[in-house]
Amino acid sequence: MAEPEGNSSVQFFEGVEKLLEIWFARTDGNTNQCDLRNIPRQKLENLLKIVRCEVISFMSNDNIDAYVLSESSMFVAQRRFILKTCGTTTPLQCLKPLLVLVQQYAGFDDVEDVFYSRKNFKRPDLQMSPHQAFEQEVALLDTFFENGSAYCMGAMNRDCWYLYTLNPLSGENNKKLHGGITEPDQTLEILMTELDPEVMSMFSREECATAAEATQKSGIEKLIPNMEVDDFLFDPCGYSMNGIMKNGCYMTIHITPEPEFSYVSFETNVPQTSYKDVISRVLETFQPGKFVLTVFANQTSSASQTPRELLKTSSFSEWMRRDIQFCRFKNYDLTYAFYSKFPS
Amino acid sequence: MAEPEGNSSVQFFEGVEKLLEIWFARTDGNTNQCDLRNIPRQKLENLLKIVRCEVISFMSNDNIDAYVLSESSMFVAQRRFILKTCGTTTPLQCLKPLLVLVQQYAGFDDVEDVFYSRKNFKRPDLQMSPHQAFEQEVALLDTFFENGSAYCMGAMNRDCWYLYTLNPLSGENNKKLHGGITEPDQTLEILMTELDPEVMSMFSREECATAAEATQKSGIEKLIPNMEVDDFLFDPCGYSMNGIMKNGCYMTIHITPEPEFSYVSFETNVPQTSYKDVISRVLETFQPGKFVLTVFANQTSSASQTPRELLKTSSFSEWMRRDIQFCRFKNYDLTYAFYSKFPS
Repeated sequence: MAEPEGNSSVQFFEGVEKLLEIWFARTDGNTNQCDLRNIPRQKLENLLKIVRCEVISFMSNDNIDAYVLSESSMFVAQRRFILKTCGTTTPLQCLKPLLVLVQQYAGFDDVEDVFYSRKNFKRPDLQMSPHQAFEQEVALLDTFFENGSAYCMGAMNRDCWYLYTLNPLSGENNKKLHGGITEPDQTLEILMTELDPEVMSMFSREECATAAEATQKSGIEKLIPNMEVDDFLFDPCGYSMNGIMKNGCYMTIHITPEPEFSYVSFETNVPQTSYKDVISRVLETFQPGKFVLTVFANQTSSASQTPRELLKTSSFSEWMRRDIQFCRFKNYDLTYAFYSKFPS
Repeated sequence: MAEPEGNSSVQFFEGVEKLLEIWFARTDGNTNQCDLRNIPRQKLENLLKIVRCEVISFMSNDNIDAYVLSESSMFVAQRRFILKTCGTTTPLQCLKPLLVLVQQYAGFDDVEDVFYSRKNFKRPDLQMSPHQAFEQEVALLDTFFENGSAYCMGAMNRDCWYLYTLNPLSGENNKKLHGGITEPDQTLEILMTELDPEVMSMFSREECATAAEATQKSGIEKLIPNMEVDDFLFDPCGYSMNGIMKNGCYMTIHITPEPEFSYVSFETNVPQTSYKDVISRVLETFQPGKFVLTVFANQTSSASQTPRELLKTSSFSEWMRRDIQFCRFKNYDLTYAFYSKFPS
């Protein structure tokens, strides 16, 4: 996405996003008057300057504000903030001003949970501080949060995925506050690399005149039905879309189509008792050479049986599983799996 | 263990071991004439010089040779080689000469599986190359093995445990050779830190005149019955023991008792349908402040239900679980868990 305009020679772009999700709370439990969407737009735009990206499109409904950014997306709900940015953006640099804004305008005074995650970068050397290494990112996060734990899922010397989240010992601090998110919550991410060049060619101005055309032609519009869509086709190539539902559920897709470093991410928090069909549709649509799959589901989520199901799923069509790992947190189960087509 | 003699001031010693386990095979499948125990003793001793340790005691039976080393232990069976060394030893430096010796004297011409693992060091800066960082160890291992994958289990910014093992995509290479170890196999490890100083004081010459006295007084002799024991009490303090059974099963315990950096490791491959009793006995015996628990079990092992059992075990008496992760490999399931006493 966000390629330098008119540059037809191939310049590297890091499609892999940094994903920051924070849930806010109040120590007195009274959050009726609290809302992250009370933070003024201009303040959010100033925040994004620190991250080194900007808003290029916006839509919203009663439950969620959805921003398409020059580098990926931002979703703001009552107490959940999601910032997903690719390229050489610096989302962790905005943590301190974000926490100040939240207290000042949204009325929350505590962080209930944090999830900072990303796949391993293709070119970590091109990142800016603190994003050159996960250890640096963790060191920064540890200055903000007392009970943060850092994990690496998958093969560190191949494809892997990093996560930082709060993981207090039960009984530590205030149980009520840090018992974790009890409302049903789940997130599916599919991070794809080595994609089919023919599919990728659709996400360029050369092949599609508009974002809507790319969304339709590629089959993206059929991945999850009943989404209100805000899509954007970059010049000369690259694609982003946000989809939101009335109930506050979202999906988001970001595409770096260049064959030398193709990357597609798919993310949604739509609840499903089984994600197999959604995953299969995503794979058929984008035809990746390999992909990382992550599913978070808490105990009250309808997706809570996902770990069991994925453990049984040693392949999706021609994609064979190479790794599967399972992690139990405070009240979330995380499943990580890595699949690739048989080496040709 | 292996403290500088007569030095009563506290000098740091890294109790955390590097554990290398290699299973050998033959490409033609015919291993009747092959045996790692055909490698001459002098050749093994030369190998250990490269690792920077030496043999201090030896016992054996028809199924296994067990060495107590100046830094931990070595076990040699027909096709399984185990080298576990603490301090600033360099076990990965012996890989190349080991593979040469195995081909030359033992008749194997292929490696069926490799497990290199260790807890995070307390003082990585004091290690020698390539052991200062797991990334360095992995880079070296990757020069020997084509399908090696490197994992970090647990919280990278707190207590964690590293593993390198072979993880070929099914179908890669020769299926017969790299389908994995099919005979029942399991390994339990408990890596304990912040141990009770009163318990630790038993593992010193001041308190016990002989290793046998320490073994009996501490309760180590009751942990797993029917073991032939070879124990060693270091001067002024530190303890190592190997136990072997007629059927080739082993156990091994290594103790660094100094309160400033106390560490105890317990390892066994004795099969159990449940490890709960063994784990409880070990915890009651050593009284650690916290511990890492790892269980490997392959599909034919009687311990194959361990992941399910440990997932249900959120505490052992006063030790509460902080992390649990589960990993499925080719034909092994690995469970990692971390427990600590509630912070006082």
